[in-house]
Amino acid sequence: MRRIIRVDTRKGILTEERANDELRRIGGRHFIAHILNTEVDPMCEPLGRYNKLIVSLGLFADTGLSTTGKLSVGGKSPLTNGVKESNTGGFAGRRLSRLGIKSVIFEDIPEKETTNVLYLSDDEIKLINMPQLRHKKVSETFRTLRGEFGENTGMLCIGPAGEMKMCSAGIASTDDKGIQIRYAGRGGMGAVMGSKGIKAIVIKANRTAEPEIYDAALLNKTNKDIIAALLDDPKSKNRKLYGTIDILETANRIGIIPTRNFSEGSFEPANEWIGIKFSDLIKERGGAGRSGTPCVPGCTIQCSNVFPDVDGEKIVASLQYENLVLLGPNLGINDLDTVGELNHLCNEVGVDAIECGAALGIAMEAGVRKFGDRDGAKELIREIGEGTYLGRILGNGAVFTGRAFGIRRVPTVKGQAMPGYDPRALKGNGVTYFTSTMGADHTAGNCFETVRTNDPLGTENQVYNSRQLQIRAAILDTMGVCLFTRPAFVKNPELLTNLFKAKFGWVVSLADIRHLGAKVLELERSFNEKSGACERFNRIPEFMREEPLPPNNTVFDITDEEMERIWDVPVRTDIF
Amino acid sequence: MRRIIRVDTRKGILTEERANDELRRIGGRHFIAHILNTEVDPMCEPLGRYNKLIVSLGLFADTGLSTTGKLSVGGKSPLTNGVKESNTGGFAGRRLSRLGIKSVIFEDIPEKETTNVLYLSDDEIKLINMPQLRHKKVSETFRTLRGEFGENTGMLCIGPAGEMKMCSAGIASTDDKGIQIRYAGRGGMGAVMGSKGIKAIVIKANRTAEPEIYDAALLNKTNKDIIAALLDDPKSKNRKLYGTIDILETANRIGIIPTRNFSEGSFEPANEWIGIKFSDLIKERGGAGRSGTPCVPGCTIQCSNVFPDVDGEKIVASLQYENLVLLGPNLGINDLDTVGELNHLCNEVGVDAIECGAALGIAMEAGVRKFGDRDGAKELIREIGEGTYLGRILGNGAVFTGRAFGIRRVPTVKGQAMPGYDPRALKGNGVTYFTSTMGADHTAGNCFETVRTNDPLGTENQVYNSRQLQIRAAILDTMGVCLFTRPAFVKNPELLTNLFKAKFGWVVSLADIRHLGAKVLELERSFNEKSGACERFNRIPEFMREEPLPPNNTVFDITDEEMERIWDVPVRTDIF
Repeated sequence: MRRIIRVDTRKGILTEERANDELRRIGGRHFIAHILNTEVDPMCEPLGRYNKLIVSLGLFADTGLSTTGKLSVGGKSPLTNGVKESNTGGFAGRRLSRLGIKSVIFEDIPEKETTNVLYLSDDEIKLINMPQLRHKKVSETFRTLRGEFGENTGMLCIGPAGEMKMCSAGIASTDDKGIQIRYAGRGGMGAVMGSKGIKAIVIKANRTAEPEIYDAALLNKTNKDIIAALLDDPKSKNRKLYGTIDILETANRIGIIPTRNFSEGSFEPANEWIGIKFSDLIKERGGAGRSGTPCVPGCTIQCSNVFPDVDGEKIVASLQYENLVLLGPNLGINDLDTVGELNHLCNEVGVDAIECGAALGIAMEAGVRKFGDRDGAKELIREIGEGTYLGRILGNGAVFTGRAFGIRRVPTVKGQAMPGYDPRALKGNGVTYFTSTMGADHTAGNCFETVRTNDPLGTENQVYNSRQLQIRAAILDTMGVCLFTRPAFVKNPELLTNLFKAKFGWVVSLADIRHLGAKVLELERSFNEKSGACERFNRIPEFMREEPLPPNNTVFDITDEEMERIWDVPVRTDIF
Repeated sequence: MRRIIRVDTRKGILTEERANDELRRIGGRHFIAHILNTEVDPMCEPLGRYNKLIVSLGLFADTGLSTTGKLSVGGKSPLTNGVKESNTGGFAGRRLSRLGIKSVIFEDIPEKETTNVLYLSDDEIKLINMPQLRHKKVSETFRTLRGEFGENTGMLCIGPAGEMKMCSAGIASTDDKGIQIRYAGRGGMGAVMGSKGIKAIVIKANRTAEPEIYDAALLNKTNKDIIAALLDDPKSKNRKLYGTIDILETANRIGIIPTRNFSEGSFEPANEWIGIKFSDLIKERGGAGRSGTPCVPGCTIQCSNVFPDVDGEKIVASLQYENLVLLGPNLGINDLDTVGELNHLCNEVGVDAIECGAALGIAMEAGVRKFGDRDGAKELIREIGEGTYLGRILGNGAVFTGRAFGIRRVPTVKGQAMPGYDPRALKGNGVTYFTSTMGADHTAGNCFETVRTNDPLGTENQVYNSRQLQIRAAILDTMGVCLFTRPAFVKNPELLTNLFKAKFGWVVSLADIRHLGAKVLELERSFNEKSGACERFNRIPEFMREEPLPPNNTVFDITDEEMERIWDVPVRTDIF
């Protein structure tokens, strides 16, 4: 993959470049950080002319390696004002790689509102004006595009929230049948896409560009070993059986679940939704219901699901842990079907379910609706899609909603809502929220995996663990593989070094790969230092240092000073 | 004045300190900068527990010097996230000084919403819970307080906007009859007061604390000379005749008037409202109408007015240039009575008319109402007072409104709306907006006064002029005299040095006084550097560098680099 497509959204002109060998070795999250640092003014207005929306494939996107097929989107975030990389599954990534397209970079903004579709195929690349898609919800957009461009088409789009440039808007992605809707949800990349007048990207790839692979046999073997390691790994097995909801039981027990706008850490009704019960329910309801489905073609882990209603009709696919807790416990909603519907509504209007759940929790604390009001919660999300005044408040995220209603309990860092891990009872994630270049984002370094080995309520090792995990995340996001492949690499780090050798002929040590991750973070930190989205100007919210979180009744008590020194902490370089 | 009253709004406890000689020499704006730098974490949440609301009298507040009686309020601004000093006339300042009170500092926030009144008198200081004032508009609040505490009472209060912690909320001040409503409008200090559960401050002063004056005869003489200089000054004469609206004619001619959300620089109908026509209209309508009234007791300049309707009933007092252009031309409204009513409504709900006018202009660009819709504009301000969803958007100011509606033409710097001087045609004010510690605020260094001597469209001397004026403003705001005393001191700088000698026995040169001003700015800059409200992270909006402003068709083109070097520019220290 060496093709880089640039779209001048003001002039409607497409140009193409070819990545040289050096650029070829810069992929996914790394590529986004690279473009931001070399081409984007860190002080530009995120929804203005000088920001860029960067779609980028990972280093291994054209290898068929298990879990690749995800794609990264990034730019300067209107939520955090800093760098943002958000990745998603779906079928678009694999098709882009088949076309040999490494990246699509959207530049400038149109002078007037437009509803353009970028069409990429074997034969042509072009912008198509499709006003009929204006303000259409996500499913309908995908349906219309499938009607227009046929099956076997990779697609990305935004919903009305993105078109209205709401800062919680994400970019949706789907499979060929439109069953699953996945999201590059975090950081408001949907608003950036909206600002550029791009409603959707459609990718047809009938032929397949020959991938450049240095040692196909080694790649093949390594991939097989990774698959074997994952199939053998108990955590991965559980993910297939129960999806990400596998962690719900532990999360509720250790008291980290955002409940009623982060005022409590556990929610009793959620015990009825834990992994095994959730998958049993899917089985029992039958119909469209599925557990263990892939989010990208050929994934081994298959942690997705199709959650059906009592009649077996799909409510939402896929229902993930973070969305579930932000839209359920955080709103005091104790009915799983409602939670599924709320997630579906988020997907339809085109907002990040995490940011939206946090915004709704704040609105409920403000009395806009009562906690537990199922219909009320649905109305609120619909209002986002309709762009009512209330919808415009909520659709702009948690910080915005908190300010609108004068609420002080606003669970955000760097402008972005915290996902399903209250840092008062999982302190390592507080470190990640505070120090990550992405703001409050569990995927940037999720310390949940350390809870068995390190007391989540204690302050010990949290900074070390967060650092370790942040570097790992940066590596995997650069490779374009799922974070859930970690177990394979942790077990056998050689699989990782072999991959680089097989694909690029690049002989690297584990330390070199760690260095690559650290370098990506450094690039991102450099951008954020210049945009103001750095630790100095962004804190853990004051209420989290004051209000003890039931049931553990702990506050967040790692000092800023300790966290700010995270990059000085010595780490072992011999482990992944 | 050595009394410093501290109010712990959480515990409801009042304590009193006595300023030592050193602190006695720190006044007004300087005192606010001092307290912020020594007691307030620059990274605190502006509406949280750790911000302080500081009411502070200037150095000369107890001297009877013409134009003193103004008071400063300050704290960390929820709009700019930096230091804020906002000053206002009214009768409260003079009464505070009679009680010998130099400053009142409100600390912490209450655990539950309260509607407290701070009562300060000769005999007692106390907090009084007055739930009957909850969400009452400003006039009614003042009326109720006068009923409760009698005439001859200095008063400050917030409207519903402040109670709802809207970031454009100001602090209102009035005379003893409730005729004029003046505002410490800028920077959202009303929201800070609201966050502390303080609805109003009431000051009764029957006795008069003996002022400490080093040389009463010199003070007396200097004051007389200042008055004579002001009475003799043509600019001051015009201010008495025409108020601040005196500048409207020139402003419209040179094309700097915000028109239809800063899309044009002049507004033809405004030619009917220029100074002389405005004062003639007041005379013609008679009744309550007045020109040339003082905003503080005993002011010589008397630039205020009471603007009456056709029946001679007061519409608003006082109508000032900045409010007039933001609520008139900026909304495309060509009817002066409507503009007066809009200003009255801002005063009633308790918002800064400048910030509000800018927010409404953005909303009109977004199509919420049409430009020129008189009733629509009134409805919008009423919605702020009612706290509807739309009202909560607008009441949080221009940046907030711009984000809610996805509008890019947002005329703000450092989070705060630009006042009535478009920097594309008055470039010196662009420098002030960008480099001032206060964000876009003409009172921080208004280059309008240079338009006759320096081409406002050129880039020459603008940085120099802005610097000169910013230092002057810091000095006058520290002294507690009106910015409009400048002509006297420019003409005869010795009047200035004599004042310091007469009051404090402080023998200073003009250079020393300039140094004092520079020191205040340095303290403020230091705070802003730590809070992120500094030049590095705040820019002139991109549209102002791209969109030529009719009728001059110029863009703002002074580089950030040149402006950032403002404090390195050599200035003459021998002139005021």
